Amino acid sequence: MTPDEFRTHGKALIDWVADYLESIEERPVSPDVRPGEVRAMLPEHPPAEAEPFEAVLADLDRVIVPGLTHWQHPSFFAFFPGNSSYASILGELVSAGLGVQGMSWVTSPACTEVETLMMDWMVELLGLPERFRSTSPTGGGVIHGSASEATLASILAARWRISGGTVNRTGDTTHLVAYATSQAHSSIEKGLRIAGIGTDQLRVVPHDERFAMRADAFAELVAADVAAGLTPFWVCCNHGTTSSMAFDPTPEIAATAHQHGMWVHVDAAMSGIAALAPELRWVNQGLELADSYCTNPHKWMGVVFDCDLFYTADRAALLGALSILPEYLRSQAAESGQAIDYRDWQIPLGRRFRALKLWFTIRTGGVDDAVAMIRRHVAATQELAGLVRADDRFEVVAPHPLNLLCLALRDGDRATDALIERANATGRALFTRTVLDGRTALRFSIGGRTTDERHVRAGWDLLSSLA
Amino acid sequence: MTPDEFRTHGKALIDWVADYLESIEERPVSPDVRPGEVRAMLPEHPPAEAEPFEAVLADLDRVIVPGLTHWQHPSFFAFFPGNSSYASILGELVSAGLGVQGMSWVTSPACTEVETLMMDWMVELLGLPERFRSTSPTGGGVIHGSASEATLASILAARWRISGGTVNRTGDTTHLVAYATSQAHSSIEKGLRIAGIGTDQLRVVPHDERFAMRADAFAELVAADVAAGLTPFWVCCNHGTTSSMAFDPTPEIAATAHQHGMWVHVDAAMSGIAALAPELRWVNQGLELADSYCTNPHKWMGVVFDCDLFYTADRAALLGALSILPEYLRSQAAESGQAIDYRDWQIPLGRRFRALKLWFTIRTGGVDDAVAMIRRHVAATQELAGLVRADDRFEVVAPHPLNLLCLALRDGDRATDALIERANATGRALFTRTVLDGRTALRFSIGGRTTDERHVRAGWDLLSSLA
Repeated sequence: MTPDEFRTHGKALIDWVADYLESIEERPVSPDVRPGEVRAMLPEHPPAEAEPFEAVLADLDRVIVPGLTHWQHPSFFAFFPGNSSYASILGELVSAGLGVQGMSWVTSPACTEVETLMMDWMVELLGLPERFRSTSPTGGGVIHGSASEATLASILAARWRISGGTVNRTGDTTHLVAYATSQAHSSIEKGLRIAGIGTDQLRVVPHDERFAMRADAFAELVAADVAAGLTPFWVCCNHGTTSSMAFDPTPEIAATAHQHGMWVHVDAAMSGIAALAPELRWVNQGLELADSYCTNPHKWMGVVFDCDLFYTADRAALLGALSILPEYLRSQAAESGQAIDYRDWQIPLGRRFRALKLWFTIRTGGVDDAVAMIRRHVAATQELAGLVRADDRFEVVAPHPLNLLCLALRDGDRATDALIERANATGRALFTRTVLDGRTALRFSIGGRTTDERHVRAGWDLLSSLA
Repeated sequence: MTPDEFRTHGKALIDWVADYLESIEERPVSPDVRPGEVRAMLPEHPPAEAEPFEAVLADLDRVIVPGLTHWQHPSFFAFFPGNSSYASILGELVSAGLGVQGMSWVTSPACTEVETLMMDWMVELLGLPERFRSTSPTGGGVIHGSASEATLASILAARWRISGGTVNRTGDTTHLVAYATSQAHSSIEKGLRIAGIGTDQLRVVPHDERFAMRADAFAELVAADVAAGLTPFWVCCNHGTTSSMAFDPTPEIAATAHQHGMWVHVDAAMSGIAALAPELRWVNQGLELADSYCTNPHKWMGVVFDCDLFYTADRAALLGALSILPEYLRSQAAESGQAIDYRDWQIPLGRRFRALKLWFTIRTGGVDDAVAMIRRHVAATQELAGLVRADDRFEVVAPHPLNLLCLALRDGDRATDALIERANATGRALFTRTVLDGRTALRFSIGGRTTDERHVRAGWDLLSSLA
């Protein structure tokens, strides 16, 4: 492809993306395809000769779009939102166009420094503790690809700190114990497994009727483990669980944890972004006691995936766990201590210029847009809760402080499951299910950039009519 | 930003990217900035009000571009190539525009199925063993973000297999031993550390004068470890090391490894793509014996970062190590066994539609372009070696079968280091250093999409005149 062809095709694709997003509401939210059907529409072997770009563009419409679940559809109420703004799409375009690597400061200084600045801007915009700022004595932040990676990084930093660094050499994690509720994200079990901790060493802390960790039960488990000669080293407090958006009581948990030198990680992947709205800053409760924290602009701030903000108050532990310096990566800038090498803050080595999409979003008014959207979603969720409560057939089965409502049919799990299936089959909305204390629930997650009260009401009308 | 503004600004950015890439040769390869200087050019606090997009665009030219190391510059001879084609940039644009999640088949079927098809297309294009195909009884492939992640995934699969799966529960890795040479990538040490294996359990296998693993020394180390009651479980064979592009003798290593049930991972992150050219398929030697393999289209095939191809011949082990199924991620499609859920093939949960950039590249003639480029780079490297050998002041210090030449001044390490520093300071080219068996070497890595014989010769003239 020549530069001129790139100009022509690129502009056509910009229009194509705008057309896709502007007309997305006309499509079914999820596709009517069975496994293998998409692949069967494409040649089994690579083309022997170059095809015209128009053929590729045509296949986007013929094969790709009909095979997608449309995460940007305003009636996408499934999983969690992954909303994206136009500005952030342009940030990704520039990142791809520049094609630079940000693994070290020296491999592209602007890539590192804009990221550090964005992490500090977000401290301010979210009202986070000063100790997470890059300019603080011991803290700082980095953009990870996902909250799973942030969870793993926090486990590794905690493992390093509690072992005084020897774990890097010995790999000995025999006595370490980690804590979370059954409501915590699957990435916690996965992260512990990857880190060689083993799921036998994960204590599932009982939760209360709001699905939040019981601080008293946590303290008892820790005491029992200490008495048994084990070493509690890491606890995950969820600020907004995936299943039901429950909030663990971080201040109480951290008080116990810190008596034992444990690392407190707060996972607010979905809900932390709510703090952009000052009246919702309660979601930050206890963060001044956290050793690490993450939240995802790629969920509820319109910054297209991937963009997870990972902060720590103890960067020495993180670097201790993750830095390795082979000869071919040495640089004067890093050795002087004046530059950040983000490769030492993350699992992989290579990294894209992801800060651009955050920078583009914030500068073009994305924060005001996000705050208005967040308020709209929270209000719509509360209104929806009223509608559900007014219908005798339904029940609200968990607290709903923000933008997720878990509901169920009084007729039982089978009825709820059948309702989800029938509603999704219409293509007019998409929901996912979860199980809360043994009971099946429908998750009505309200987080699309263009989702408003009208879509929520239509979603409810659909459920109500099918029930 | 409205849809119409997106159309306008997006088209302006397409032109901006084309202008940047077309004029890149006029810029110094690396910036003349000190730590903190880029940040100091930007406001310390986020803007209180939305700024016009033109202001953002202007800052790309004022702040960002002058602060970049230009990885797409034809005289970028540093680190490794990270070249990108116009078609792949457009693939990233579409991926961002669609904003879908491919963590499970059901979260966007086309995202999964195009990826599986691309992995199978690449088996064909690279001439890889059939057992890596998704349609084979036990194998398959996935796109990872980087080779570091592939290395870690292979370690985790190996750890799972050798322990019969119990490691997930117990985290017990006490007796496990891993093997690689000192020339292997830093991600191997990092991956073992992350996996809780500990670097004491990594055996550094001696290498020969070509910096390749000595198969006899490997066999002796394994025998000694077995005799000591330890469990050899994983060996990394490099096909093209980062320092000097050495190739380990995989057939001999695998023969020993498989006698002991070990996992053989082949890391060909940089060099594996050479196999697009049929006459270079020797880089695949021994792959039919590998349990896992990775190579990076984002290095030498013009597919913009991130795109690492990770194949395994034992997907059950990979899934055993990495799959976790919470209620909110269940689906009929996956439980039927007919669909692939790629979240179980990787470290994170979330994933972008990265297959699009590979699909765009291949369909628009990217393979022919890459083959021509690879041949041009290999020829230029051999010609460069002739020039270096003809100059008494210099020495070629490692074999150079493909596109990396390691050279040094006969005057000693200090002279070589000074030469690298002076050459880089001109901004006319960029080189990195390494240390080979205690000796400093200049790495002349030839891999830019637009790098041709003219740039290589100019790079050499620069070194020669400064020496």
